[in-house]
Amino acid sequence: MPKFIKKYSKKVGLPPGSLVHIGEKHSDISKITVVDYSKDHYEEKNVTALEDCRSYLEKNSTTWLRLTGIHDTQLVQSIGSLCNLHQLVLEDILHTNQRPKVEFYKEYVFIVLWLIYYNEDNDSTKYEQLSLVVGKNFVITFEEREHGLFDTIKERIEHSQWREKDLGSDYLAYALVDVIVDNYFLVLESKSNKIEEIEQSFFDDTSAASARSLYKQKANMIFLKKSIWPLREVVSTLLRNDSTIIKESTLPYLRDLNDHTVQIIEIIESIQDLLTSMLNIYQSAVSNKMNTIMKVLTVITTIFVPLTLITGIYGMNFKYMPELEWKYGYLTVLAIMGSIIFGMLVYFKRKKWL
Amino acid sequence: MPKFIKKYSKKVGLPPGSLVHIGEKHSDISKITVVDYSKDHYEEKNVTALEDCRSYLEKNSTTWLRLTGIHDTQLVQSIGSLCNLHQLVLEDILHTNQRPKVEFYKEYVFIVLWLIYYNEDNDSTKYEQLSLVVGKNFVITFEEREHGLFDTIKERIEHSQWREKDLGSDYLAYALVDVIVDNYFLVLESKSNKIEEIEQSFFDDTSAASARSLYKQKANMIFLKKSIWPLREVVSTLLRNDSTIIKESTLPYLRDLNDHTVQIIEIIESIQDLLTSMLNIYQSAVSNKMNTIMKVLTVITTIFVPLTLITGIYGMNFKYMPELEWKYGYLTVLAIMGSIIFGMLVYFKRKKWL
Amino acid sequence: MPKFIKKYSKKVGLPPGSLVHIGEKHSDISKITVVDYSKDHYEEKNVTALEDCRSYLEKNSTTWLRLTGIHDTQLVQSIGSLCNLHQLVLEDILHTNQRPKVEFYKEYVFIVLWLIYYNEDNDSTKYEQLSLVVGKNFVITFEEREHGLFDTIKERIEHSQWREKDLGSDYLAYALVDVIVDNYFLVLESKSNKIEEIEQSFFDDTSAASARSLYKQKANMIFLKKSIWPLREVVSTLLRNDSTIIKESTLPYLRDLNDHTVQIIEIIESIQDLLTSMLNIYQSAVSNKMNTIMKVLTVITTIFVPLTLITGIYGMNFKYMPELEWKYGYLTVLAIMGSIIFGMLVYFKRKKWL
Amino acid sequence: MPKFIKKYSKKVGLPPGSLVHIGEKHSDISKITVVDYSKDHYEEKNVTALEDCRSYLEKNSTTWLRLTGIHDTQLVQSIGSLCNLHQLVLEDILHTNQRPKVEFYKEYVFIVLWLIYYNEDNDSTKYEQLSLVVGKNFVITFEEREHGLFDTIKERIEHSQWREKDLGSDYLAYALVDVIVDNYFLVLESKSNKIEEIEQSFFDDTSAASARSLYKQKANMIFLKKSIWPLREVVSTLLRNDSTIIKESTLPYLRDLNDHTVQIIEIIESIQDLLTSMLNIYQSAVSNKMNTIMKVLTVITTIFVPLTLITGIYGMNFKYMPELEWKYGYLTVLAIMGSIIFGMLVYFKRKKWL
Amino acid sequence: MPKFIKKYSKKVGLPPGSLVHIGEKHSDISKITVVDYSKDHYEEKNVTALEDCRSYLEKNSTTWLRLTGIHDTQLVQSIGSLCNLHQLVLEDILHTNQRPKVEFYKEYVFIVLWLIYYNEDNDSTKYEQLSLVVGKNFVITFEEREHGLFDTIKERIEHSQWREKDLGSDYLAYALVDVIVDNYFLVLESKSNKIEEIEQSFFDDTSAASARSLYKQKANMIFLKKSIWPLREVVSTLLRNDSTIIKESTLPYLRDLNDHTVQIIEIIESIQDLLTSMLNIYQSAVSNKMNTIMKVLTVITTIFVPLTLITGIYGMNFKYMPELEWKYGYLTVLAIMGSIIFGMLVYFKRKKWL
Repeated sequence: MPKFIKKYSKKVGLPPGSLVHIGEKHSDISKITVVDYSKDHYEEKNVTALEDCRSYLEKNSTTWLRLTGIHDTQLVQSIGSLCNLHQLVLEDILHTNQRPKVEFYKEYVFIVLWLIYYNEDNDSTKYEQLSLVVGKNFVITFEEREHGLFDTIKERIEHSQWREKDLGSDYLAYALVDVIVDNYFLVLESKSNKIEEIEQSFFDDTSAASARSLYKQKANMIFLKKSIWPLREVVSTLLRNDSTIIKESTLPYLRDLNDHTVQIIEIIESIQDLLTSMLNIYQSAVSNKMNTIMKVLTVITTIFVPLTLITGIYGMNFKYMPELEWKYGYLTVLAIMGSIIFGMLVYFKRKKWL
Repeated sequence: MPKFIKKYSKKVGLPPGSLVHIGEKHSDISKITVVDYSKDHYEEKNVTALEDCRSYLEKNSTTWLRLTGIHDTQLVQSIGSLCNLHQLVLEDILHTNQRPKVEFYKEYVFIVLWLIYYNEDNDSTKYEQLSLVVGKNFVITFEEREHGLFDTIKERIEHSQWREKDLGSDYLAYALVDVIVDNYFLVLESKSNKIEEIEQSFFDDTSAASARSLYKQKANMIFLKKSIWPLREVVSTLLRNDSTIIKESTLPYLRDLNDHTVQIIEIIESIQDLLTSMLNIYQSAVSNKMNTIMKVLTVITTIFVPLTLITGIYGMNFKYMPELEWKYGYLTVLAIMGSIIFGMLVYFKRKKWL
Repeated sequence: MPKFIKKYSKKVGLPPGSLVHIGEKHSDISKITVVDYSKDHYEEKNVTALEDCRSYLEKNSTTWLRLTGIHDTQLVQSIGSLCNLHQLVLEDILHTNQRPKVEFYKEYVFIVLWLIYYNEDNDSTKYEQLSLVVGKNFVITFEEREHGLFDTIKERIEHSQWREKDLGSDYLAYALVDVIVDNYFLVLESKSNKIEEIEQSFFDDTSAASARSLYKQKANMIFLKKSIWPLREVVSTLLRNDSTIIKESTLPYLRDLNDHTVQIIEIIESIQDLLTSMLNIYQSAVSNKMNTIMKVLTVITTIFVPLTLITGIYGMNFKYMPELEWKYGYLTVLAIMGSIIFGMLVYFKRKKWL
Repeated sequence: MPKFIKKYSKKVGLPPGSLVHIGEKHSDISKITVVDYSKDHYEEKNVTALEDCRSYLEKNSTTWLRLTGIHDTQLVQSIGSLCNLHQLVLEDILHTNQRPKVEFYKEYVFIVLWLIYYNEDNDSTKYEQLSLVVGKNFVITFEEREHGLFDTIKERIEHSQWREKDLGSDYLAYALVDVIVDNYFLVLESKSNKIEEIEQSFFDDTSAASARSLYKQKANMIFLKKSIWPLREVVSTLLRNDSTIIKESTLPYLRDLNDHTVQIIEIIESIQDLLTSMLNIYQSAVSNKMNTIMKVLTVITTIFVPLTLITGIYGMNFKYMPELEWKYGYLTVLAIMGSIIFGMLVYFKRKKWL
Repeated sequence: MPKFIKKYSKKVGLPPGSLVHIGEKHSDISKITVVDYSKDHYEEKNVTALEDCRSYLEKNSTTWLRLTGIHDTQLVQSIGSLCNLHQLVLEDILHTNQRPKVEFYKEYVFIVLWLIYYNEDNDSTKYEQLSLVVGKNFVITFEEREHGLFDTIKERIEHSQWREKDLGSDYLAYALVDVIVDNYFLVLESKSNKIEEIEQSFFDDTSAASARSLYKQKANMIFLKKSIWPLREVVSTLLRNDSTIIKESTLPYLRDLNDHTVQIIEIIESIQDLLTSMLNIYQSAVSNKMNTIMKVLTVITTIFVPLTLITGIYGMNFKYMPELEWKYGYLTVLAIMGSIIFGMLVYFKRKKWL
């Protein structure tokens, strides 16, 4: 089962706004990276002292501050003070148990998302929380562990042949969310292939393994659907917002994103319907196989048990059994038995049991 | 399984607006055809140099520009510049992974649709993307491969006895969408016939083949439903629009189209309900058949096993077994066995097992 | 399967507004009848020349023009010109493939409905299209074949003791639709009785026939539900309209009609739920019967096979088998076998298998 | 099956507003009772001549006019004239086939409800129609038969220690509806107990009786749900109305009633979900039992059939069978058979079949 | 089955506003505790005479009055008079059969909630009613029995390092509801673990115990879902209210609460979907196991029954059976039997039955 619910007990009883990291600790070190770019410059740097970031944030250029490894509550608190983040925002970043959502504050937009990881090996799907704070000229991302998903964005911006460098922080935020949505398509593509494989075999192979695969895919789809719904809400809320941080020029991209989330939901629902149909058919196939087995058993029993009775009769030790004395008694019995077999076979052939 | 999702991986990581063709390459050559008509003239021409089209577009007559084979990104780009199409529109035309949609731009309306192809041979249904750009006096269609579906429209316009020649580009767009919707009816008609065939046999023929056909029809319906929903949205959006390109005179036709899409959805849902019922009944039929088989087995076993025991008893080699010496021992035993058979048959008859 | 979709192929490729009759030809002759009445007169006449109707239509009295047999496209066209009907209306009348709907024109209201026919013999339900054109002082009905359903209305008006003669064309239209809705109740009543019959037997009679009846009722309900939904839309649209043709005084009757359609939908849905429950229980009943059969088989096998082994043992031809020489060997074995049977019976009794 | 639909055929073909009693005749005599009360007086009387009621209605006190037995259309008509009721209202009172509804007229509010009767004996649920006409200072109830459900209300008013006597006709109407709603809770309580009983036994007792009880409860719930939905609509319509007959002071009570109907719907839906789960589990339990039976059969067969073969071999009459001559041949064979039994038992133990 | 409905019968027939305790009596003594705090003081006291509370309520500090054990209707009535509570409010507090709801009165807000108790031992979930009256500077809680759930709140307030002491009565109410919501997460966490356990075993362990656990979890989820829906309504009503008692500063906390209830609903629905899938797969697994058993039976029968026939043949006592005289007759028969076994084994191996 995909984990629908993370360890929650640690939080219970704490006052709201308490900064405690909830969730697995995915990496040992917390790392801060800064990507800073404007129309004509691009800079990327690992930061050790948080104060070094202040200058970037104060400049007019677009700054992307990445924190990888959020278990260091102290560091999250410092970033919070640096950018004037609300205490409840910091709490949400640390409690990796959030439902994806977007919240509009005066100075920034706070977005919580799930990054979906698909594990090809055991066909399981996991997620980690990605928190985004989008300000006028900066984006701060809080990531649970190091992953290469955003590398293409960095490269695209660095070597931007198009005007991407010029589009500001809200476009950067869009690009990050776009990667997450694209990842859904990739996950669905791989699932889709796996389901097609099952589809080609499950009529004939009614083994428990087929059922197991079907179940895994069903569980995966339930998980994916549960995770995409709030994401869709996030995107459509961003689309309808009237915050000054999301500029008009970014709306067409968000509209595109919205279309994609709708498409993902529809694909998931279609696959769910298909899996339900497959399961129903699979159950029929199992029953059909049983029928086949039972037919074999019944045919064998029906043919041989009466014959055995005949041999039993002539195996009795009665003194006066005239047939036993007949010269062709034995052959007659064999002939009768042969014709019984033949008759039965014809009968079963007609009943289409053979 | 109908393909719900096309190869997506190629796109991931590209900036929005990148012109890369995504999808299968269905034909080798890209072909441009121009159909130009007004109240009193009709012209049809294959175009080699795109510049030749400019004169048609500038004239007041209605121009239908058809591009067949969209893998030639260069050509699509040229058409884009010729008609001032937005970069994101061109991207959507090339990424044949779009959900059907309609977008209103100042100078034109952009519509993405699915052409449903039904393959009678393997009872499978596929689709290709059809993109339409509808301008004041022109329609551009981007088609993935050559198909004859729009031939009747060309003929109708050419030999128009009615005022179709006079109705402009929005009517032409309607006529194209109408063909797509009509095609759904044809597909549903053929499915409907196939389902009726299954319906007449599946009570008696509980073979795996019945289940397989049921599954195929279910998968088909899931696919059709998934594809008609966004089409309906497209039609009803066109109906409610306030773009100047869709003229009032075309609205009654669009209303008709809307009625048809609603009807198609209702037919599909009814067929889905019916298929679900059929599958349930099919499962009962399989179980019923099993009961029949088991009854045969049980009747045979119940009759012959006790008889075999009797023969076994008188086949024992005890020295002192008085019955063996009796003159009519053998006949008595045969008579007893006969009456057991008779009694059992009466019993099973009464229990309605025979 | 009830036919959800009629022969559609004939239409494909035709321009909108083409007058081609689509559907089965139900009768050979097209017949026109005129019923004309006002507060103090009533007249009924078969018309041969359509021109004879003009005088009726021009009078102030309420005129009901009935066309039975709509395959005569020429006749439909003439009626259309007589009353100034739109070309698309005439097309809808002839294409008997319409979803029930209501359309408001300036001079008249156009209503398409389904007349449900229930065939008691093969428990199937069919429909034919009924098109109504309701004008200020006339109602035109286009009926596919002769049926007696509207006779009571004619009689009621003719011998009207109440003010029905006085209520005008919209009331007449209401009365016609009311007959259709009442017919649903009659159909549901007959189904309801049939289902009750099945209900009383299907626990015990797990034959395939039960499943077949259940399936038939399910298919019937799917069909009825599909047909009543658009009818309800028609009625509630009529209720909310602001056309001058539907007078205020008719609204209470339409409200009543609306209540009835809602009630029909609720009854159908309840029956569907009930049928689903019955099918589930039926499947359990089949499985339960199987258990009963298997118990018999197992009991018989378990009792007789060990006994047969014993007789087998003493049927062996070993030279040195001391028991065979014992005087009471045979009786001892019989006694042992008897006590095995007794023990087994007690055991199965306790396990509640008998 | 609970009756979802009453005999309808009698009505078909009648003009609207015809006063014909539809439904079973539940009692022979129609009885009129008058309860009249105000702050400081209470009077209860059986009325024979309807005219006697007029004085009560004209007084300022609250008058409750009860008609028990509505088959006397003449009487209903007289009451109608006495209180100026609309012809369609009288029709609805007599056609006991109404969906619960509320209609606001100028002088009165007309409410149709269902009184749910639960029959403990055959665990079935029936309903009868209760029509209420609520005027400024009177309530008229039309009841199909005598039932004691409203006795507590009469007593409460008579011995009112609270201000109930003072609250007028709309409060009285509320109190009557409240009794109906309370009755639902009682019905649900009894069902709930029955379901709990089934729940405790159906894992072990997979007999057909369990399935039958489950089915009955399912059918009951479908019926209850179907009947409570329109009741809820009635209550919430009363709550939102702006009729002068429902006074502000009664709204808190209606709000309470509304809460209760919502609660009833939620309880019914939860029970339905539960019953569906129980049915699914029941089906598994039946299959599981089958597995158990089959295991017994297979174990017995697998152990004894090979042994029987061995005895068969040494029962053959070949001349040269060396083993037969061995001194310990018999014992050896017995030993071998014993060890086969032992080995098999161990094997099945390991496979957890025993 | 979780109890969806409490003993209701006691109430039926009573006038609204009657103070009768409905529900189980959970504790013998009713206890009143007062917690009073403001920015700089904190006091906690057990109260014996209710009058002692008046001074606290009149002070400006926040007062939390707890009544544990609500069966003492006299005491509830006194608290009601002390704080001017409406008679219907007191009735709702005593009738522990309420659907969670919130009602706004002029001087206070009345909230009814369910406290969910999870019993780890028998994996059952029960609830008790918690009624809250939130006034300007006080909160009164009516609890059915003593439970430790609110202890952390008391401690948090007493040792408040944050400004919780300063936030007033509406924040206190929020904190209490928050505990209830947090409890849902804990319950879901424990269920989630249990379901994961089942998930790991139910493919192999198709025993009735698995089905029983699945059923229990399903019933639990139905109960949880039924209880969380009205809770969500309560929270979102509080969020949208315009009462002066809920201050703006509390809204962010309520928003957070709202997010959590939505998340809980989504988790429950996902788990329900998963359980349905598991049940379906479980049913297949049971059928699969049956197939395995049947295969064993069929293989054994198919191999041994024909062999037994052969031994039967040569066990017959015919005088003229030439084979019996052959020297190697016995060995030949043994060899034939051996090759039949071998052939069968190969055959079944190929059919993948072994």
